[in-house]
Amino acid sequence: MRGKQLYEGKAKVLFEGPEAGTLIQYFKDDATAFNNQKKGTITGKGILNNCISEYIMLRLAELGIPTHFIKRLDEREQLIKSVEIVPLEVVVRNVAAGSICKNLGLVEGTPLSESLVEFCYKKDELGDPLISRDHAVVLGWATQDEIEDILHYTHRINDFLRGLFFGIGVRLVDFKIEFGRLQDDLGTMIVLADEISPDSCRLWDVKTNEKMDKDRFRRDLGAVEEAYIEIARRLGVLPESFAEKNPA
Amino acid sequence: MRGKQLYEGKAKVLFEGPEAGTLIQYFKDDATAFNNQKKGTITGKGILNNCISEYIMLRLAELGIPTHFIKRLDEREQLIKSVEIVPLEVVVRNVAAGSICKNLGLVEGTPLSESLVEFCYKKDELGDPLISRDHAVVLGWATQDEIEDILHYTHRINDFLRGLFFGIGVRLVDFKIEFGRLQDDLGTMIVLADEISPDSCRLWDVKTNEKMDKDRFRRDLGAVEEAYIEIARRLGVLPESFAEKNPA
Ligand SMILES: Nc1ncnc2c1ncn2[C@@H]1O[C@H](COP(=O)(O)OP(=O)(O)O)[C@@H](O)[C@H]1O
Ligand SMILES: Nc1ncnc2c1ncn2[C@@H]1O[C@H](COP(=O)(O)OP(=O)(O)O)[C@@H](O)[C@H]1O
Ligand SMILES: [Mg+2]
Ligand SMILES: [Mg+2]
Repeated sequence: MRGKQLYEGKAKVLFEGPEAGTLIQYFKDDATAFNNQKKGTITGKGILNNCISEYIMLRLAELGIPTHFIKRLDEREQLIKSVEIVPLEVVVRNVAAGSICKNLGLVEGTPLSESLVEFCYKKDELGDPLISRDHAVVLGWATQDEIEDILHYTHRINDFLRGLFFGIGVRLVDFKIEFGRLQDDLGTMIVLADEISPDSCRLWDVKTNEKMDKDRFRRDLGAVEEAYIEIARRLGVLPESFAEKNPA
Repeated sequence: MRGKQLYEGKAKVLFEGPEAGTLIQYFKDDATAFNNQKKGTITGKGILNNCISEYIMLRLAELGIPTHFIKRLDEREQLIKSVEIVPLEVVVRNVAAGSICKNLGLVEGTPLSESLVEFCYKKDELGDPLISRDHAVVLGWATQDEIEDILHYTHRINDFLRGLFFGIGVRLVDFKIEFGRLQDDLGTMIVLADEISPDSCRLWDVKTNEKMDKDRFRRDLGAVEEAYIEIARRLGVLPESFAEKNPA
């Protein structure tokens, strides 16, 4: 079913899909952090993120949020619609953690009075620098209308995901999403693309505040795979093979 | 007339003024760059910036833009209204230069399709990081209304200064301003504070593109004092003592 490889990224590989306008997104176990300075492997991560992202994209589609997701094909592959990625990493923060603490002198764990949406220019060579909406528009990375669509979807996604994760005893501290432009007969529309997984979210156990996301890898906290497994388990999407090896 | 010293900054010193609610702003010849890593002296800069900033603040007041400026007292001192500085460095860019080129990979001298207003958190220890309006509001550094006043004044200041400098054969590439909260019987209002001078502007000769601002110091281009003198001369505010020593 896979056509030729189009792009190999840090965590996923994109292949031509079976039909025009489709791609196959293959989830690797590779993990990177701190703009590629730290590299490693999280065994089984690709399989887990494929399932977790599938589950979340499907739930968001039910809410009326357009996504690139078509269907999961196997353990590590999903069929998606090919889009032109808007070169913005859209970060939503509900609680201060990560770069905002370092850059603005905030204490990790401080709740923000309102959810904060940040835009970073998606450019690894430049370290994905924080920008404002105006930069994106003036520099031609997105139109004003696209930014408005992105903000509208982003706030809805945040509200839904906070609820979803709260329901499974997890605090959604922050997350990163990407959007793309989907072309069809009627024109171009903005859709949610890439993935939503413990690679792209900070997830803290509500009771213990334990980190259940890629920060375990970034900070060498151990039990990295176990955290991803636990998120998949609580969401009810843990694959059989993991469930057998990792009884609850 | 000067009361006790309240604050010594990188380029100016603040003293208590003769009446409550006033301060004396003393302009030094000290120059710093790259977040204080480079330090030096530009002979006469304090005297020149005092005159240039006086001139610009007076012209802006005529436009109806409220400022902290009361009057110039002598060569290096001006009387100002004491305000609570909003901890934002408001940067306006008409042409790409400086940090935006480094951070976003732009070529110096590229005109921007629209003037871009940037907000940086004024905090030397953190390197005055770029933020968005939302950061300023969510983190409590300014209210939404204050940001709107600031943006309104900032765009007017940019329009006026582009005209003013264009009139003297100078391109206003970018500049940095600060605002403060002025308390009076009627409440609190936002006013323009600090200074506007070749320390805080990028100014390029329209014909030759020669730099006529602090970049001459930052980049060791030589003839630094001469550039400040030439700006004062073209604005018609060059003090006698300089005019004699530096005939046109
Ligand atoms: N639907 C899509 N169409 C085209 N590109 C996509 C789509 N979804 C995600 N992408 C892009 O595919 C890549 C996914 O692989 P990843 O390992 O995350 O790459 P990166 O190292 O660039 O972040 C990303 O660059 C992402 O922007
Ligand atoms: N009207 C005012 N009232 C109070 N503080 C002011 C006023 N105008 C400017 N300031 C502050 O005074 C200081 C001026 O000195 P400067 O050398 O520029 O300091 P810095 O090194 O902090 O930039 C700045 O911190 C500026 O924010
Ligand atoms: Mg990625
Ligand atoms: Mg200053």
